[in-house]
Amino acid sequence: MLAWLRQYRRAQLPGDISAGIVVAMMMIPQGMAYAMVAGLPPVAGLYASIVPPLLYALFGSSMTQSIGPMAITSLMTASLLAPLAAPGSGLYMVLAAQLALLSGVVLLVCGLLRIGFLANFFSRPVMNGFTLGSSIVIALGQGDALLGAVFPQVHPLSAILGVGAVVLLLLARQFLARGLRLAGLPAAAADVGARLAPMVLVIGATILSWLFDFGALGVHTTGAVPSGLPGLNLATSASHWRALVQPALLIGFMVFLISMSGAQTLALKRSEKLHSNQELIGLGAANIGAALTGGFPVTGSLSRSAVNFAAGANTQLASLITAALLALALVAPTGWLALLPLPVLAATIIVAVLGMLDLDTLRTAWRYDRADALALLATAAGVLGLGVEAGVIIGLMLSMGAIIWRASRPHIAVLGRIAGTEHFRNITRYAADTTPELLLLRIDAGLFFANVEPVRERIDEELAAHPATRNLVLVLSAVNAIDTSALFGLVELNTSLKARKIGLHLAEVKGPVMDRLKHSSLLDTLNGQVFLSTAMAAQALSAAH
Amino acid sequence: MLAWLRQYRRAQLPGDISAGIVVAMMMIPQGMAYAMVAGLPPVAGLYASIVPPLLYALFGSSMTQSIGPMAITSLMTASLLAPLAAPGSGLYMVLAAQLALLSGVVLLVCGLLRIGFLANFFSRPVMNGFTLGSSIVIALGQGDALLGAVFPQVHPLSAILGVGAVVLLLLARQFLARGLRLAGLPAAAADVGARLAPMVLVIGATILSWLFDFGALGVHTTGAVPSGLPGLNLATSASHWRALVQPALLIGFMVFLISMSGAQTLALKRSEKLHSNQELIGLGAANIGAALTGGFPVTGSLSRSAVNFAAGANTQLASLITAALLALALVAPTGWLALLPLPVLAATIIVAVLGMLDLDTLRTAWRYDRADALALLATAAGVLGLGVEAGVIIGLMLSMGAIIWRASRPHIAVLGRIAGTEHFRNITRYAADTTPELLLLRIDAGLFFANVEPVRERIDEELAAHPATRNLVLVLSAVNAIDTSALFGLVELNTSLKARKIGLHLAEVKGPVMDRLKHSSLLDTLNGQVFLSTAMAAQALSAAH
Repeated sequence: MLAWLRQYRRAQLPGDISAGIVVAMMMIPQGMAYAMVAGLPPVAGLYASIVPPLLYALFGSSMTQSIGPMAITSLMTASLLAPLAAPGSGLYMVLAAQLALLSGVVLLVCGLLRIGFLANFFSRPVMNGFTLGSSIVIALGQGDALLGAVFPQVHPLSAILGVGAVVLLLLARQFLARGLRLAGLPAAAADVGARLAPMVLVIGATILSWLFDFGALGVHTTGAVPSGLPGLNLATSASHWRALVQPALLIGFMVFLISMSGAQTLALKRSEKLHSNQELIGLGAANIGAALTGGFPVTGSLSRSAVNFAAGANTQLASLITAALLALALVAPTGWLALLPLPVLAATIIVAVLGMLDLDTLRTAWRYDRADALALLATAAGVLGLGVEAGVIIGLMLSMGAIIWRASRPHIAVLGRIAGTEHFRNITRYAADTTPELLLLRIDAGLFFANVEPVRERIDEELAAHPATRNLVLVLSAVNAIDTSALFGLVELNTSLKARKIGLHLAEVKGPVMDRLKHSSLLDTLNGQVFLSTAMAAQALSAAH
Repeated sequence: MLAWLRQYRRAQLPGDISAGIVVAMMMIPQGMAYAMVAGLPPVAGLYASIVPPLLYALFGSSMTQSIGPMAITSLMTASLLAPLAAPGSGLYMVLAAQLALLSGVVLLVCGLLRIGFLANFFSRPVMNGFTLGSSIVIALGQGDALLGAVFPQVHPLSAILGVGAVVLLLLARQFLARGLRLAGLPAAAADVGARLAPMVLVIGATILSWLFDFGALGVHTTGAVPSGLPGLNLATSASHWRALVQPALLIGFMVFLISMSGAQTLALKRSEKLHSNQELIGLGAANIGAALTGGFPVTGSLSRSAVNFAAGANTQLASLITAALLALALVAPTGWLALLPLPVLAATIIVAVLGMLDLDTLRTAWRYDRADALALLATAAGVLGLGVEAGVIIGLMLSMGAIIWRASRPHIAVLGRIAGTEHFRNITRYAADTTPELLLLRIDAGLFFANVEPVRERIDEELAAHPATRNLVLVLSAVNAIDTSALFGLVELNTSLKARKIGLHLAEVKGPVMDRLKHSSLLDTLNGQVFLSTAMAAQALSAAH
């Protein structure tokens, strides 16, 4: 906690200051835009960009993570709250804050329970499919705001502003960095500068709006923004709290996965070490902070964190500077914000999510592993066809299924003796000798509930293939653990082999596994012996005949 | 499909006939009782015991499985339908059938998708905790029916009948089998005979009810039962279908787990082979059959299947005989059923679920693996405190967590050369030589999304512990597969090692893994070589210096 502050070096300051300023410039339009995606007034996005990064800086583990509203979590917020309240209503805002609070608590509890290993839950194709589907849903969802009226109606001036802004932003993305480089800026600075195009556009549009009174011409604008910082406002109806439990679990899960996958990408570039449990605690604190200041669920955004990183951020001080600048922007007169034309804000959203479209993973997976490519497409199709919640659940089920499928196929080798040695090896890979009455099986995975039946089936198959077997030795050199289900499985195996007059022996049992087994009835009832080594087992059981 | 019928031997017939009769005698009170648990009229339990076993016999894989209503699935049915309709209402019955239909379809689809490996999803302690909690909930839920009035009120005659029946059934369980053995019956027959106590009791109570007109004395009875078989009756409201999707997934999942765990126990005793995908199809067909005949979700019941097994069932013909007898009972005049006192039926439920209480797993787990014991208690507490749905979800989350935790901790060994040989072994287990500039790491698990980050972290740690490393060799002799996420992980590792001027080499890559990698960019960009053996890698990379 705050280790970075204690070790802070003066040399880190310039990078942090420049990154802090750049990200603040990026955050103002982005925060407002993602609040719109979440179905909230744009100012809520600014609120949600101040206290959360402060708390993350205190408790989180990534140095360059930029915490705040993010496209996908905003979409999820809108989708999860839609059945509970009308977007824009007072209740809706209260529920958005409550959702952030509950998911913050979920994240915090998960961090304290140290279950950060769940960060590796979604495969990359599933995560990519989820992002792909969500980006398209978000972009389509901004269509009406972009065109200024409910499609197929169009408000001409709004449409010109919106579509024009999209074109400008696409051109900026394509050419601005190159232009700035040609103008003499260093490559890194040019890239960062190009990311400020949305802010420049928003300022320009606001000035135009003021000059030509867009509001009077029928263009929707953000409208009056309350100055100052908001306070806590939570509902007390128990039924609302209950209705938010499942959404909070879903959104907390995705907040964590999205933040970790971004942070891991950046940490790799600097050999920085992430602590997933610390990350959970940081994200939990950030979301609780968002809730207490009238915000909505927040997470680390890869696109914003990458700018933070590229702009020179060395520590979380950069995010603190960003937060301070945003707070200043809100404490200062906020009248100018009211004039911002919504079609332009919608354009920034559409271009931002188009930037999240990455078909490279799909291409790679399609060539490399068709099943992974299909998982990607299924998740994307789920988000598009059934909604973002269903997308998460499909992703969960596909990932879960893949993990269990792998867990249920442990590697098991029949061992034989390498002639003239004390070495025993897999007979399918080495020329090794076996004897018909002795079957040596090496199980190359910890034994637990997900593989106990498959292991038992495999043992049955091997016994059927070696009908003369009088003694079966399980070589447990690679078995790091045996859980209670597997213990029952071994006890039942022992009983059934006893009835078939086949001895069951164990060899090379690891110390910790043996300590556990001593607390069970298996060793007392074992229809055979425990041997230190496979060689000793083979010798004793061959000599017996 | 029907393999058992093609291979039917005459010698199997007597066992199948006796088991068919015995199970029918057991099924009549049990079916009615579990229909009550499900919130349905008792006759629905008889309907659900006729067509489902027929379809299971056609499509299922277990020879001794007895398909029909079961305590836990009935409890789940009641709990899942409670928010949607009032128990006993016409809509409720329609929804119960629809729930069976949807879960049947879910099971069938899962079978066709061949995802039967999910049968190993719940650990034994989690399953036991779920059963424990459910038994208590079911027993408590029968309190009012047992005492004949809403507690704390009591209807004296009903209470005498109910409590008396409980006492008689407990005495029968304790002493009847022994008594029958003393009376000269063989042990197996005595055990089976003792299981018919509920039927005898139900017949006795019905006769008493007729003699003394219990109905007029205020004792609730089953009431008029329509004669004949029911037809299909499904609602058409889309919102009802939608509301049943999640319940159908939950109940389908538990139908499968409950049926498989029972069938596995019995299959073990006869070295019979189960096919989990076939089982899914059989259960799916059975539930669709239940839906089409006005029933509710059904599954294999271990207690009933065990009686079937003990009474001599050799094939599914036994279940066909049971079904035929039940159909006869319904086509025959059913007036007698109307007189059956409900307190006695409640007593059979309470005693049956008390029989499901098994504290042995808890005791074993508590001594052997405290974490497993806590998972058991958490699942049981979830069912008791939050309901049966929450119990399933807690069980799912605990099992999922345990699987991912194990998957995310692959075994990785630093290898060294056994002096004077070409053998390379784990340096923590063997006296093996290493050189400071060459790091050999053997990864003992397939690489996939759940372990790609942990593996990368471990590689970083080993590189930090061996700072002189110029070449890293990943020995992939135990890696059976590399998924797309792990492929990206390797590509990123390669990039980051390249930047650190460390070579990345692969050794002992298995054939199928190599075939896949050839469809990726990894081999083209690899900052090192692919070696056939660890020895060749060590030789080449040592010679290079």
